[in-house]
Amino acid sequence: MKRIIFALVGFTALAGIVVDTAPVSGQSRGEAAPIYGIRLPEGYRDWHLISVKRLTASGGKLKQLRAQLGNDIAIRAFRNGTLPFPDGAMIAALHWNESSSDADNKVLAEGFPGVGLESSFAGSGVNVQFMVKDSKKYAASGGWGFADFTNGKPGSVALHERCFPCHQPAKDRDYVFTHYATTP
Amino acid sequence: MKRIIFALVGFTALAGIVVDTAPVSGQSRGEAAPIYGIRLPEGYRDWHLISVKRLTASGGKLKQLRAQLGNDIAIRAFRNGTLPFPDGAMIAALHWNESSSDADNKVLAEGFPGVGLESSFAGSGVNVQFMVKDSKKYAASGGWGFADFTNGKPGSVALHERCFPCHQPAKDRDYVFTHYATTP
Repeated sequence: MKRIIFALVGFTALAGIVVDTAPVSGQSRGEAAPIYGIRLPEGYRDWHLISVKRLTASGGKLKQLRAQLGNDIAIRAFRNGTLPFPDGAMIAALHWNESSSDADNKVLAEGFPGVGLESSFAGSGVNVQFMVKDSKKYAASGGWGFADFTNGKPGSVALHERCFPCHQPAKDRDYVFTHYATTP
Repeated sequence: MKRIIFALVGFTALAGIVVDTAPVSGQSRGEAAPIYGIRLPEGYRDWHLISVKRLTASGGKLKQLRAQLGNDIAIRAFRNGTLPFPDGAMIAALHWNESSSDADNKVLAEGFPGVGLESSFAGSGVNVQFMVKDSKKYAASGGWGFADFTNGKPGSVALHERCFPCHQPAKDRDYVFTHYATTP
């Protein structure tokens, strides 16, 4: 696929055609999120797994299971410990409501009696958030653009204003909280 | 890539060369797990995300975050709702100890005061388990071979004897408990 892309670039260059340069975020669609202007990147559900998380709020008001996925540039940087992340790196954080099933837990109780096993899983989707590295375009926010989408619709300006300040404590890891999960 | 594979198959057929058929599990390495003879499939950490789970035991004796990944054949079957899964489908279940960090939770407390947010993440690796579809080879176990590895070493015979019986309740979903998580 890469070769085809290079071939096309070569062809248009030779033919002297002026073309838009592809956005750093690659193919994307829908409405752009505020401040950073990021659209939902196509195919992010197929990016590779970085890690898995859980988020809860006190009083059971919120229980989420989460997965962080990265495009090839981001995954390579995680594996090689490359900091800062190179331009083009994209990280997606997928958030689901944590659900459980009595049927699943019955199976666990029968298969492993007396252990009290309980299972939960990714239920309905909540939102998806992105970090997109472009050291020039996003120089004012550590080289990262941030985006939040719920059902494909971008979150508010107020929400997006909180992204970069909140990521400040991870400055020594290029503002990325997530570590690459080990390969068991 | 598919076209290249088909082209090679066509070529070898025309040339009348007898070649070994590739094993259904693709490239793999290390010691084979008992009963089903499955070796650790190469590159499974790069398979696509099916879903995310959590497993706990009563009394806090066990807390795991888990991810299920699938090879291309498995992912396509999940998305298209294809049952039974076609031969060559492989599912990996990666299990980690659930960890948390005071530093992360401090960030959450400062970023979202009064909500009582707490985060946890995939910590040390525990084990990885596989389901490998080969309707002929594994006809006696619903067409699935099962394998468990800890640090690359296969689990015991006794453990592997429990796999198929435990998956019986999911018979109407071709013995697969995991559902494909929505794309948020």
